[in-house]
Amino acid sequence: MFVIMVYDVEVKRVNKVLKTGRKFLHWVQNSVLEGDISPAKLEKLRTELKHIINEEKDSVIFYTFRTTRYSSREIMGIQKGGEECIL
Amino acid sequence: MFVIMVYDVEVKRVNKVLKTGRKFLHWVQNSVLEGDISPAKLEKLRTELKHIINEEKDSVIFYTFRTTRYSSREIMGIQKGGEECIL
Repeated sequence: MFVIMVYDVEVKRVNKVLKTGRKFLHWVQNSVLEGDISPAKLEKLRTELKHIINEEKDSVIFYTFRTTRYSSREIMGIQKGGEECIL
Repeated sequence: MFVIMVYDVEVKRVNKVLKTGRKFLHWVQNSVLEGDISPAKLEKLRTELKHIINEEKDSVIFYTFRTTRYSSREIMGIQKGGEECIL
């Protein structure tokens, strides 16, 4: 399945969330990751994130698509993320 | 077409970008909007944003899907946006 993950977490947890997300998905932009992932792996990602985020302060959204990838991804302005940038 | 818009812009331009996005899409989370929109409207949104953002500093991503909406949208933690919250 294809997944887009968008997170909005407190600064002190950003690195941990990003690092965990990148174990399963590709980093697209500051707070966005995407990729093809199995349901089992997605569950694993969710579980790991649950231990990292503060569910009363942080927010993580998963968009999941069963069959299709997007038709297009267009970036206006600069590309802030990307696989070529290693933190 | 179904569109997910994710923005990462400087604080001073956040309100303008969000306000413009909300003319065409629904606000989901701090920096995420989504909705069904015609190609013409999407073009209009793009044009308006081009006049607002600084393309050397800001970043806006549009994911467009021709036929499908997502299968699911799951939010972990708090829901930071939403149509019920008016800025």
